[in-house]
Amino acid sequence: MAKGASLSGFPEWLPEERVVEQQAIDTLRRIFELNGFLGIETRAVEQGSSLLKKGETSKEIYLLSRLQEVGQENDTPVEDRLGLHFDLTVPLSRYVVEHSGDVAFPFKRWQIQKVWRGERPQEGRFREFIQADIDVVGNGDLPSHYEVELPLVMVSALEALRAFGLPKATVHANNRKLSEGFYRGLGLDDIEGVLREIDKLDKIGADEVSKLLISECGATEAQAKACLELAELSASTGEELEREFRALCAKHGIEESSDAYALAAEGLSTLAMIVDEAARIRPGSVVADLKIARGLDYYTGSVYETFLDGAASLGSICSGGRYDNLATQGKKKYPGVGLSIGLSRLVSYMLHTAGAHANRQSPAAVLVAVWNEDERGEANRIAEALRSRGIATDVAPTAAKLGKQIKYADKLGIPYVWFPGQEGAGDEVKNIVTGDQEAADRTSWQPDTVYSRQTVEYGD
Amino acid sequence: MAKGASLSGFPEWLPEERVVEQQAIDTLRRIFELNGFLGIETRAVEQGSSLLKKGETSKEIYLLSRLQEVGQENDTPVEDRLGLHFDLTVPLSRYVVEHSGDVAFPFKRWQIQKVWRGERPQEGRFREFIQADIDVVGNGDLPSHYEVELPLVMVSALEALRAFGLPKATVHANNRKLSEGFYRGLGLDDIEGVLREIDKLDKIGADEVSKLLISECGATEAQAKACLELAELSASTGEELEREFRALCAKHGIEESSDAYALAAEGLSTLAMIVDEAARIRPGSVVADLKIARGLDYYTGSVYETFLDGAASLGSICSGGRYDNLATQGKKKYPGVGLSIGLSRLVSYMLHTAGAHANRQSPAAVLVAVWNEDERGEANRIAEALRSRGIATDVAPTAAKLGKQIKYADKLGIPYVWFPGQEGAGDEVKNIVTGDQEAADRTSWQPDTVYSRQTVEYGD
Repeated sequence: MAKGASLSGFPEWLPEERVVEQQAIDTLRRIFELNGFLGIETRAVEQGSSLLKKGETSKEIYLLSRLQEVGQENDTPVEDRLGLHFDLTVPLSRYVVEHSGDVAFPFKRWQIQKVWRGERPQEGRFREFIQADIDVVGNGDLPSHYEVELPLVMVSALEALRAFGLPKATVHANNRKLSEGFYRGLGLDDIEGVLREIDKLDKIGADEVSKLLISECGATEAQAKACLELAELSASTGEELEREFRALCAKHGIEESSDAYALAAEGLSTLAMIVDEAARIRPGSVVADLKIARGLDYYTGSVYETFLDGAASLGSICSGGRYDNLATQGKKKYPGVGLSIGLSRLVSYMLHTAGAHANRQSPAAVLVAVWNEDERGEANRIAEALRSRGIATDVAPTAAKLGKQIKYADKLGIPYVWFPGQEGAGDEVKNIVTGDQEAADRTSWQPDTVYSRQTVEYGD
Repeated sequence: MAKGASLSGFPEWLPEERVVEQQAIDTLRRIFELNGFLGIETRAVEQGSSLLKKGETSKEIYLLSRLQEVGQENDTPVEDRLGLHFDLTVPLSRYVVEHSGDVAFPFKRWQIQKVWRGERPQEGRFREFIQADIDVVGNGDLPSHYEVELPLVMVSALEALRAFGLPKATVHANNRKLSEGFYRGLGLDDIEGVLREIDKLDKIGADEVSKLLISECGATEAQAKACLELAELSASTGEELEREFRALCAKHGIEESSDAYALAAEGLSTLAMIVDEAARIRPGSVVADLKIARGLDYYTGSVYETFLDGAASLGSICSGGRYDNLATQGKKKYPGVGLSIGLSRLVSYMLHTAGAHANRQSPAAVLVAVWNEDERGEANRIAEALRSRGIATDVAPTAAKLGKQIKYADKLGIPYVWFPGQEGAGDEVKNIVTGDQEAADRTSWQPDTVYSRQTVEYGD
């Protein structure tokens, strides 16, 4: 059926796959709320002017036009049209400014929503996908302790997703001020350019990046080499980080008294605080990794990327950073720190690599059998009695032969079939997984714990 | 701030309002799952050809174009472009056909998702809003008992929403076959036309509808009068319905032996079954109301509209019906019965009329105070200990004066403030609502039940 064919880049899960996605979302929400984040949802559309504000034309925005206006939509400049949001950060910054009088600052929010990008679909890259974000936004200023706390909330969220087959996650942190100070100390000026090339390290390797630094950013061969040496630096304690960074500055002649060094030192101290504090709370969860650059130019301090052990092909699955200038209102600034999980890609990994699957397709724990259509009313009453005690219950679609009713339960993974008592006999319930059958009272029977709830398991 | 100004028709709730929406969604999902419905989510976009299939140009569809293609999008016919879905029924019929080999039939699904319509925004009519749907779809055939069970699931869902301030809901049911048989028995042929005019009764009154039936549907004055008499018929038992309908047929000379009467009798018997069965399970929840027509032409049997006591201005808040021909694949048919709640309109009513509000803005039950920034690590450890026992906990943003920290908790509605013990003293926790303060152990303390969870209340 051609018209109904799947659309490339718009993933849609089957019901049993959707259970995995829904429970992953529930899990993230639980962790975010446990940490005191407030849930919001923003409209799916933003003004073109907001979407294009940061020069994000590369984001492949989807613009809307009303069917009745087809043919005239281009009379309206793109800035005045509506487009679908391509992330949840731009909408947050607009939301905070719009509602600044109505939210308490620092404003800690979680948001799990679909975003859309008209990019060419690839393995794990979708045109419609779910992001799961947390951010904290201050009014005027924002304490730096959030730069360690937010990645740690994400670490604990990703830890909770290990129940769905995700490997251990490690946050790799860097600081823009540290990188910028170092590059300036070397005599480089095109900071954004250098960050952009360094961001390509994993993709194209050091040799190619070195060439680009020379050809695109005006670096000498020695400067390019120094930039790559900085990118090689990683550390799991603040003390190690500081020692190695000082040694690198000394090697390349960056004076500790220079303005450039002072800028780098600011970033260095925040980054050292992050790895040390993280090591105290969750050892091994956060490392300093000075090749982390992040493509987006609105980051002004800490930047984060997160990798899963043994799943390099996924790339960074949770990224973010500190942004001081994204949301402004006149002279007022709303600095923020935030991280975003690309959830659809993770769900795809859970389903297709980790073998995550629902223990059953239906939420129902019981199917009530129907002996004949005249007795459907009694089956419905049994179902109501079970539901009133919180037991999810389905009723057989038809009074087909018993084998067919059991087959329907089996296909949906419903573990129990309830047999209404006939001719004065009592009700019985059969566990169709174990084969056990027993007398049961609709007002007191409970399913065994292992069969009571729809859950997610993983592995083959 | 003009750029950040609200977009008319795109509602966006403040965090404390969002709690109401989120908990209403959670409640609906719980009821749907309790009844054995499987959750799915479909992509936000469909092909133009699907969206326009039923001649739905009046739906004011939003079409998409990629930013990079602006100016060329009209080279592509509307049928081949992507548009945002305007309901969840068209996507379901496409989903069922596309995945017919992978789902168990009858396929019972719930779906709660945003839909978009480019209509002129009005009081309670949005351009972006959430629908909450349940449908059951058969492969080839579908037993008629679902025509009573599905409205009853919605009744119990709406019953659960009374905790958010909704008044009692009553489903008004009719049957297309009954109406069509009666109109044909009168000698009328333009059945869709008559249904369309009858659908306007509540808006424009009987006199205007009568005029339209005469001018638009070729009815005589007597035929128009008979149509209006049918529309006036309502009944709360099958027996009453059958008696009144027979009397009306006799009055207007519709022979019980005619083909038209036979068609009407099919509808009559289903409708009688629905009101009687509903009366047995949930007395007063469903009435037969023969003016219910439903504008959409894909309904082939039962049709439903649901009204809230004392909230006439909301109109029907949950509508649907049986559709036998919406989803087809070659000669195969997938008949369905479904109902849809316009959730955003209900949430708007809950917030603005019923006075629904969260007991607190933050999900956190406790705020851990920070005496000075050097002791933040200890505050974080207390928070972790509480969270590990499922108690949602926030930590003070800064080591400001205690009054300011308590004010932050108060603004977010966090009921408890935790004071880390200093200089060997034990921890204490203060309920800032009651003023009670007591010694507390982070490994065992529990908030009082009334303060433990974020809940929704209503009334002023």
